[in-house]
Amino acid sequence: MAPKSLPELPPIAGVRLATAQAGIKYRDRTDLLLAEFAPGTTVAGVFTRSKAPSAPVDWCRAALPSGRARALLVNSGNANAFTGRRGVEAVGASVKAVTVALSCSPAEVWLASTGVIGEPLDARKIEAALPALAKALGADGWEPAARAIMTTDTFPKAATRSVALGGKKVTINGIAKGSGMIAPDMATMLAFVFTDAKIAAPLLQQLLQQSNAKSFNAITVDGDTSTSDTALLFATGQGAEVTQKDAGAFAAALDGLMIELARLVAKDGEGAQKFITIEVSGAESDEAARRIGLSIANSPLVKTAIAGEDANWGRIVMAVGKSGEKVERDTLRVLIGGVLIAENGERVEGYDEAPVAAHMRTRDIAIAVDIGLGKGRATVWTCDLTHGYIDINADYRS
Amino acid sequence: MAPKSLPELPPIAGVRLATAQAGIKYRDRTDLLLAEFAPGTTVAGVFTRSKAPSAPVDWCRAALPSGRARALLVNSGNANAFTGRRGVEAVGASVKAVTVALSCSPAEVWLASTGVIGEPLDARKIEAALPALAKALGADGWEPAARAIMTTDTFPKAATRSVALGGKKVTINGIAKGSGMIAPDMATMLAFVFTDAKIAAPLLQQLLQQSNAKSFNAITVDGDTSTSDTALLFATGQGAEVTQKDAGAFAAALDGLMIELARLVAKDGEGAQKFITIEVSGAESDEAARRIGLSIANSPLVKTAIAGEDANWGRIVMAVGKSGEKVERDTLRVLIGGVLIAENGERVEGYDEAPVAAHMRTRDIAIAVDIGLGKGRATVWTCDLTHGYIDINADYRS
Repeated sequence: MAPKSLPELPPIAGVRLATAQAGIKYRDRTDLLLAEFAPGTTVAGVFTRSKAPSAPVDWCRAALPSGRARALLVNSGNANAFTGRRGVEAVGASVKAVTVALSCSPAEVWLASTGVIGEPLDARKIEAALPALAKALGADGWEPAARAIMTTDTFPKAATRSVALGGKKVTINGIAKGSGMIAPDMATMLAFVFTDAKIAAPLLQQLLQQSNAKSFNAITVDGDTSTSDTALLFATGQGAEVTQKDAGAFAAALDGLMIELARLVAKDGEGAQKFITIEVSGAESDEAARRIGLSIANSPLVKTAIAGEDANWGRIVMAVGKSGEKVERDTLRVLIGGVLIAENGERVEGYDEAPVAAHMRTRDIAIAVDIGLGKGRATVWTCDLTHGYIDINADYRS
Repeated sequence: MAPKSLPELPPIAGVRLATAQAGIKYRDRTDLLLAEFAPGTTVAGVFTRSKAPSAPVDWCRAALPSGRARALLVNSGNANAFTGRRGVEAVGASVKAVTVALSCSPAEVWLASTGVIGEPLDARKIEAALPALAKALGADGWEPAARAIMTTDTFPKAATRSVALGGKKVTINGIAKGSGMIAPDMATMLAFVFTDAKIAAPLLQQLLQQSNAKSFNAITVDGDTSTSDTALLFATGQGAEVTQKDAGAFAAALDGLMIELARLVAKDGEGAQKFITIEVSGAESDEAARRIGLSIANSPLVKTAIAGEDANWGRIVMAVGKSGEKVERDTLRVLIGGVLIAENGERVEGYDEAPVAAHMRTRDIAIAVDIGLGKGRATVWTCDLTHGYIDINADYRS
């Protein structure tokens, strides 16, 4: 389900990129990304809710109140998670190497790691790679950047938007990785978004959280939450300013970009053969709708039915029923591919499965559920559960 | 992982059983079980927490306050769930047929249905079968009873215990079905337990709830909660009396019997090749320990790693971290097959994977997690996630 081509990402004033093969785990693949930001760049971040977060997540959380960034360093192949004191030391050594190469302070260096959990990360490989990496920095190289952060991903993920703000154009670029919302052994979902707009850190944080709720928090592959999920948004301040009262156009573009990246992650779900969009309406609140959507999206029985092209709507009813949210059996409506299947607590009179069965044979499956109780709505994206998922995850580490 | 043979279940004074082929869905298989109870029989029940429960679950919940039972009627092949008004009518017709055949009142008739969701249940087949079924009632027939309630189960599940109460022997028999804690399309886990002890309904309910928390609420196959989960405990009152102050021995025997049945259900999990026992200790409370255990047991990434015989302890850390319960990364200890792998926030010094890899190749996998924060403990049982699960559930209905 890879897109035909990667979009062309323009340069962003104040962002320079470079990648390298540091040999952290993979052979003959880039596994290190360095981004350098202009002085004055602000940053916002959202992180995994796991109680066992990785060392780089701890580092970024501690740095967040400063809201300032001069560099981002990302490695793939090793998550530096559950690595104890040695993990903290690896973070320290990596940060130090960046500050030396780019002449910045430690609190302005942002880190993310993705890969195996529990294996010590050898920071000497990162230290050794950094001088050449710093020399190679340039304004282009978005596709190599998207590739360097991949783990089990089958295609690189990138998106771009531009917004006119009072006659000036502002650009937003984003890259992401993740194959399985969460494939914790190849730890997880990472997303990095960059803009030349000038945005104060508190507003930037608010914009990121709002867009994240509609995008990365609305996708799932297997319901497993990684130790390392990280989304960072950098604003270099080289272009037009976005303020609280005119943030609408920028927020809309950011929503669009982050939803595009999130959908790409769900499409690259491990073993995925079908992309599933679940629209929930009529719930008590938007948050309740999102939870009901995720209950459907995470149900192994719904996901295997879709893999088998079986219009098994009874399993959707089951998943709604187990969501823990307020639901009334007799006000629930279930549609697949736009066809109403069930309402008033039973299958509709004269239900014809033929058009639904035809829809199930397509690649893009649309499920809609109306709870019939309130005005809450949400859209959730996921993929099916196939033999490919078992193959990848039963064999991966060994 | 079927047991070598079904245990021999003795008669229970006050219980008579019969089975029939009503042709509800299956051909050449029994699909109807009738149990008749002596006057004075008390009953306790626990049911699915689904917000979309089946019509028989609604019926039993409404009957529960009476605490009285004269009959139990169970059909397999159709869950009578999400069947609306017609489902309620099918319940009414089935109950009426039982009251006519056994001369009892409707409030004393207990029902359970398991099978496809959303297909109307044709009660005429049940009405037609009942007169012959009532005539065939006898004190034996526990194995046929265990078989008549099966759906995708690969073996019948039964257990028996006896307890000496003040010089008198009391017997407890139980049968269960479920292949997958929850395989909602073949809807679910059903368990029926019978004893000749005399136990007042409120105490019986308390005993059932206590044992259920340690048994059926501590197993999972896929985390999907069915529309129809039902466990009923009948006490015919023909033997010794159990009172609140001497309930300990009976409760211990009931625990043992229900845990045995629950473990059989997990062993028969769809596609299961390995049986997994997860011991959680050191949590803030027993309930927190159970939730952490279920988070591990329901993680597709833990389950596929075990299917692949991969000692992938990082995924266990991930599943503990996402449980939502209080956890400290640095006090957590993880053991597989009794071997300590991780503590103090990292892998133990000099960890040798060889004995753990050998344990992973066995059929009975033991995972232990100590949270290091309190005294809460729980044991949870599950099975691995294999290609067999995908085969069964991607193909089942079509």
